Parts: sequence; structure tokens; C-alpha cells
Amino acid sequence: MTDKKEKTTIVLFSGELDKAIAAFIIANGAAAYDHEVTIFFTFWGLNALRKDSPVPVKKGWLEKMFGAMMPRGADRLGLSKMNFGGIGPRMIKHVMKKHRALTLPQLIELAQEQGVKLVACTMTMELLGLQEEELLDGIEYAGVAAYLGDAADAKVNLFI
Amino acid sequence: MTDKKEKTTIVLFSGELDKAIAAFIIANGAAAYDHEVTIFFTFWGLNALRKDSPVPVKKGWLEKMFGAMMPRGADRLGLSKMNFGGIGPRMIKHVMKKHRALTLPQLIELAQEQGVKLVACTMTMELLGLQEEELLDGIEYAGVAAYLGDAADAKVNLFI
Amino acid sequence: MTDKKEKTTIVLFSGELDKAIAAFIIANGAAAYDHEVTIFFTFWGLNALRKDSPVPVKKGWLEKMFGAMMPRGADRLGLSKMNFGGIGPRMIKHVMKKHRALTLPQLIELAQEQGVKLVACTMTMELLGLQEEELLDGIEYAGVAAYLGDAADAKVNLFI
Repeated sequence: MTDKKEKTTIVLFSGELDKAIAAFIIANGAAAYDHEVTIFFTFWGLNALRKDSPVPVKKGWLEKMFGAMMPRGADRLGLSKMNFGGIGPRMIKHVMKKHRALTLPQLIELAQEQGVKLVACTMTMELLGLQEEELLDGIEYAGVAAYLGDAADAKVNLFI
Repeated sequence: MTDKKEKTTIVLFSGELDKAIAAFIIANGAAAYDHEVTIFFTFWGLNALRKDSPVPVKKGWLEKMFGAMMPRGADRLGLSKMNFGGIGPRMIKHVMKKHRALTLPQLIELAQEQGVKLVACTMTMELLGLQEEELLDGIEYAGVAAYLGDAADAKVNLFI
Repeated sequence: MTDKKEKTTIVLFSGELDKAIAAFIIANGAAAYDHEVTIFFTFWGLNALRKDSPVPVKKGWLEKMFGAMMPRGADRLGLSKMNFGGIGPRMIKHVMKKHRALTLPQLIELAQEQGVKLVACTMTMELLGLQEEELLDGIEYAGVAAYLGDAADAKVNLFI
């Protein structure tokens, strides 16, 4: 155990901007501390990984509906509180810019540069009809078993 | 420590279908890995354990109101996102059936078969006016002290 | 490791009464078990720490707006479910009183008496325009690095 890196594992279940920002700030902080960090994206959390323009893929009508109703990518997520039909996220983005905080797309990029493992949950991708082509590059794909393997070794486990 | 089972402990606070499904998928996965798994149901999470038809018990009016307003059992929970007055849960159940995923009642049954310990928080049961007769059979009843005892030993602790 | 206290670390991200109560009940329980407990308040969770009357501080207009829109202190938080424009919280407070459960302000006081470390996230304070004068006395101020330092040592880590 002595020269093994400590592990931090986050399940990002929620699809809101504020929660995704919290997840990535913790992940990037832990990576800076030289932890081996994994974020496992499931359910609405997958929306943070979507590319921001539609990708031509074959889908059934229900999958198309899900795809159309869910926010397309990190820049389009709403807030868990005070969303006010999209005004809240703009206010938050405004103050983040003012304080020179990284945006969510920048936090995701930084995480990838720091080697944070971003894993999309294949089971919920199937349910929501999301395909690999629709998600960012450099993502890994796995199921709950892989998550549990990482989590059982990790010092810090969070469900966000 | 060598021949002791690893422990996973989940607090299910939320009363939504999607979060309950996530909790049970993780719990069943961990149990399949031979972890000793406990789900501690508190606040709205207790609704996943309610029997689906009313049980004749004596209650004050406030407790009756809570009982009537909260969803009665695993099959009646709403979604945390895109609930659309109940259409969202039907859509999710539809795609889950299509992909042959287990329903929440089936996930609960599987958890009980695998020996996952389902513990109802007695303090919040009192607050919400829920009585043991109204919850599924095979549930244990305990307070926060019991949860903390399990959690302090567990490798994976999640609050959902 | 033998005579070191066990640690429990909670991130309180959510600003709802029910979630804050859950966080403090777990924290107080763990402190009673002689754990070293830290609650790290970030985003909407900071509202639980606000003083209940306005504090005269200099702010920009956006910070003033955030300050006006967010609930001022532990006694004014809403519920995550069945809020019904403020009726839900009153119902919950009513049943808590009836069952002689501690109110959230009392739970916070008890936590401080038991030595639970309450830490406000300085980064989100800046974003939401909250200043130290506006928060309860006896709070510590730190960033995500301090949280991660505590979390990496803790047996129980929760994100609420």
C-alpha cells in the first residue's frame, strides 16, 4: 500500500450545473493532490458529457425524445436551485467569470488533462438512448461493477 | 480484518424513482461482490419501502395527511428530473422494460434475497407518521447510531 | 492510528431544511461517538449558516440580489419535497416540536458545543457574495484543499 496512490471516486448522478461544478472542483482538487480520481457519470449526470451539437445517430423515437429534452452538454445545464427558467445559470456564469473561476467546460478539460478518469455508465446510456458518438472524446465506458471496483479501494467516495 | 467481509453503506434520503434505482443497483452490485450491504432509509427514502395499498393503522390527522401526500411504495415514486406529472416515470419504466432492466420492486426483492440489510430510520418514521405495519416485510428498524456503527466500518459510504 | 480519533466529513451542498437536518443529525451522532467531525458548507448549504437578520455590508447589485433571493438562515430553509410554498416546512417543524426533536438552529448549536467543525467554503462565498459578517459566529473559512485534507483521513465521507 505504501507507494500506491490514494483514490477518490465520485458518482455524478445529477444533471445540474452547480452539482457538476462541485463534482469537478473536488475531482480536480483531489487530482492536484495526486489522488487517482474517477468520476462515474450515471443518469442525468451523463448530460454534462454530451457534445454541444447534435450528432447524427440512429435512434428510436423514445430515445430521440429523451435526447431532445435533456440538456446538450456542460454549457446548457440548469441549476438545482434558483434556476428561474435559465436566468439563474446565466447569473452564476456571470459571477464565475467575474471571479475568474473556471467554467464547467474548462473544469472538464482540466480534469482530462490531469488524468481524472471520466467513465460513462453504459447501463443508463442505454436507458436514455445516448450513444458513444454523442459524448465527449476521451471518455471511458463501463458498468456498475467497474465503479464498485474503484470505490472499494477509494478513501473518498461521494454520490453527487 | 482478513476474513471479514467488506461493508458498503448507503443512506437513501431521496424519495425519487431514479435515485432509488441507483441506490439499489449499487447495493445489489456490492452484494454480488460479497460486500455486507446496508441501506438506511430516512426521510423521503422511506416511501420506497411502503406497501402499495393502505394499511389500517391509527394516526393523527397530520400523520394521515403526510401518508396521503407521499407516494405509496416503490412503484409510485416520481423522477428527480423530467417528471412531467408522472409521464417521465412511465417513460423510464417503459425503456427499462424494453432493455429488460429490473424494476424497482424487483431490485428491492433481489436485494432482500441477496441479504442486503434494509433499515428504516425510526426517528423519521415517527416524524412522518409511518408505522412498521405500513412498510414491507423483512425490514429492520434502527436509529442514526446503528447507521453510524455500520458506516464507520464501511469502505464505501454514500448519501443518495 | 491507535489513539487517533476517527473522522467523519460531510459536504453540505444543499440548502434545504430536510437535508440540513439529516446532515446535522449524522454529524451530532458521530460527534457523540467521539469522531472528529467536519461539515463543509458549499453553494446553497451556506444558507444554513446565515444570520437571520440582514447584516450591513457593502455589496455589488448581483451579490445583493443573490443575498435577497436566498433564504436567510437555518430557520427559513425550504423542503426538498412537499415544500408547498412554505407550508411543508411548517408542518415538519410542527411534528418535530411534537416529538421533541431538536430544531435545526438547536442542532447547529449542539454541533458547535460538541466541537463539530463548521467550515464555510470561501470560493462559493465569493461567488454568492456572502461575507463572513453575515454568517454565524464560530465558523471556520477554508477552500476545497482543506476539505480534501480532512476527507482523505475520514472513515465516513458524505455529500449531502
